[in-house]
Amino acid sequence: MTKAELNMSQLKNIFYAQSGGVTAVINATASAVIATARLHSNKIGKVYAGRNGITGALNDDLIDTSFESTEDIAALKHTPGGAFGSCRYKLKHYEQDPSEYERLIEIFKKYNIGYFFYNGGNDSQDTTNKIAEYCRKVNFPLQCIGIPKTIDNDLAHTDNCPGFGSVAKYVATSIREASFDVAAMAATSTKVFIMEVMGRHAGWIAAAAGLAAEKQGDAPHIILFPEVPFSPEKFYQRVHETVEKNGSCAIVVSEGLKNEAGRFLADSGLEDAFGHHRLGGVAPLIADLLSRLHGYKCHWAVLNYLQRSGRHLASQTDFEQAYATGKRAVEIALEGKSDCMVSIIRENDAPYRWSIGEVALSDVANNEKMLPRDFISEDGFGITHKARTYLEPLIQGEAYPPYNNGLPDYIKLKNKKATI
Amino acid sequence: MTKAELNMSQLKNIFYAQSGGVTAVINATASAVIATARLHSNKIGKVYAGRNGITGALNDDLIDTSFESTEDIAALKHTPGGAFGSCRYKLKHYEQDPSEYERLIEIFKKYNIGYFFYNGGNDSQDTTNKIAEYCRKVNFPLQCIGIPKTIDNDLAHTDNCPGFGSVAKYVATSIREASFDVAAMAATSTKVFIMEVMGRHAGWIAAAAGLAAEKQGDAPHIILFPEVPFSPEKFYQRVHETVEKNGSCAIVVSEGLKNEAGRFLADSGLEDAFGHHRLGGVAPLIADLLSRLHGYKCHWAVLNYLQRSGRHLASQTDFEQAYATGKRAVEIALEGKSDCMVSIIRENDAPYRWSIGEVALSDVANNEKMLPRDFISEDGFGITHKARTYLEPLIQGEAYPPYNNGLPDYIKLKNKKATI
Repeated sequence: MTKAELNMSQLKNIFYAQSGGVTAVINATASAVIATARLHSNKIGKVYAGRNGITGALNDDLIDTSFESTEDIAALKHTPGGAFGSCRYKLKHYEQDPSEYERLIEIFKKYNIGYFFYNGGNDSQDTTNKIAEYCRKVNFPLQCIGIPKTIDNDLAHTDNCPGFGSVAKYVATSIREASFDVAAMAATSTKVFIMEVMGRHAGWIAAAAGLAAEKQGDAPHIILFPEVPFSPEKFYQRVHETVEKNGSCAIVVSEGLKNEAGRFLADSGLEDAFGHHRLGGVAPLIADLLSRLHGYKCHWAVLNYLQRSGRHLASQTDFEQAYATGKRAVEIALEGKSDCMVSIIRENDAPYRWSIGEVALSDVANNEKMLPRDFISEDGFGITHKARTYLEPLIQGEAYPPYNNGLPDYIKLKNKKATI
Repeated sequence: MTKAELNMSQLKNIFYAQSGGVTAVINATASAVIATARLHSNKIGKVYAGRNGITGALNDDLIDTSFESTEDIAALKHTPGGAFGSCRYKLKHYEQDPSEYERLIEIFKKYNIGYFFYNGGNDSQDTTNKIAEYCRKVNFPLQCIGIPKTIDNDLAHTDNCPGFGSVAKYVATSIREASFDVAAMAATSTKVFIMEVMGRHAGWIAAAAGLAAEKQGDAPHIILFPEVPFSPEKFYQRVHETVEKNGSCAIVVSEGLKNEAGRFLADSGLEDAFGHHRLGGVAPLIADLLSRLHGYKCHWAVLNYLQRSGRHLASQTDFEQAYATGKRAVEIALEGKSDCMVSIIRENDAPYRWSIGEVALSDVANNEKMLPRDFISEDGFGITHKARTYLEPLIQGEAYPPYNNGLPDYIKLKNKKATI
């Protein structure tokens, strides 16, 4: 062993993992973590990535990112998806069953992990918090740092969540474009277009689509929020009025739309690993109801993964924030901090100014940030000026990926298994 | 009346109309027609546009484009939809009922129309041809010129159709992006992603999505073409093999997928696992079948209008061809020609070289160009090298629109009604 190797072997390593639904910019965060750690090779050893999130640690399946070239790590900045694999996996509470925590510590010891970075949403920050608590309890020295990521924008104590701004830009652009289409078809054919967006519990994404309605008459003409119980009568009436006045009607509907009894309209009866109801297909349902009641020809689209993987239309602001949070996580670690999540602080609305801060994990964990009621217009079908003031800065700028042969040039890493 | 006004009043005017489903670039063609006609103001009078296609002429509802500024006509180049409204309207044959043809000639006389430009697909070129025949029959001097437009790419005697290249780029990009997402989720959650694309009768768009599969293992892993009768067993087996080998599976399905009896799957009246009647959409149907048979968690998207209005991701090649066909239509008119459609001629595959030509309307009308069988791989689930050679040039280059405040800056014209 050379002196350099010996030195490196004494340095603590980073364990970084991606968790939950991936986004257009989570790999920008990963890129920042790895690139920043490499800048501090005198203080930090390797960056190991969990293959498929935390399960990579539980399965002793870590990825050694030191095999990836500088160019490939840089290419992560413009690549959607989760480069190391993500997971939907919730740890039991350590008081209920400590075995998985014991296993994690065993693996962290094996790979000399001193820094635990978990890049995810609410459930993931809860996981990070539990691991931090357990490590304190058993006196295992691990700096636990959460990095925010979720298209749902529902993490508390951060201005917004990396991933959300790009979805916001994608859905607002998409409904604007489709509205130009249906307006052209309406005289003799399709009069209504319905676009379904994600957002199971909160209407952040649905609200963001409302950014496209900058002027009177602009689409979307109607937004159906999960926060507003669906009233078929009011809805039909508004569609009818819009078609009469405007010729056509462009609608955004959240997958989480509920009826007046609080049940999801599109409930398929299935649950995912976190016990959340799996939803799908409220747009065709609404289209069918409208066709039957009004006789309007409807077209509908369901965006699903496309809205969160659409890296070709990423927001530059979102991209920069995703990168900044990853970079800051490494810096926080070097400052010796733990038990916190990197956060985004809004300094000013217009012009938008932001900075990076940190917040206690215990404050963030499982603390869902709902869409404020005063972001939704009185009639329940649109967004307010206040919502626009909050949302608009997040979609500014176009962070285009490079293209090769007519298609975005995304990177697939080597993802070589770590060996000790 | 000044001498200039007198002179202008003697010049023949253009009637231009958009027909059928609109595209991301049909307004680029409109922009070219108007801008080119303005360059020849000594020979051509006004450009009147039909409000909602040919129905604008039948209803004496013409748009006087001379009220639109140079800047707004230029902005049409990057605006999706159909700026003057399109229509789905088929004229009866004049031998069956000449009344609509008589009405058209009445309107064309009223507005001193000497040039009839119809911008559309198969049905529209058939309409153009019938009008040309009728005008010859009754000796009405009208130069009838078709301009190709269809995302379906099924017009004969042209290398491709403006509108198709941009859809091709959009669907190939989208399935690539979603495949990065599902690959990241597959270990603990979603293993299969299904994206439904347009193309009821021919698999051109489905085939174009195949461009994303540049390397072994790349998505889409399976394409379900309307040309290949759906065999559930073969399909399930291929999905299973793909998931086993690759971890996840990204599928493109054409809305026109048929079962072995030749019936559209989406119309087949099947019910999902919960006894709900499916509301249209072959993607959710396939997802449901897969979940039931394999237990795989599936996600699905239906692109619908988004694929043909996605101007933010237009192909530069497609954009240039759309513009060139509009420009050439005016030039052909000035050369005194009639009864023809502007066409795109492929001079060379790689590097792609193309030129603009013309073809007799009678050869084009209702002559559907099907996807050649040798564009589909032996197993029926992918595209061949021959298909790639044809398709690849059409998606080259990114014709980005300008953005304002984070969103594409599209134009809405004044569309002032013409008065005589």
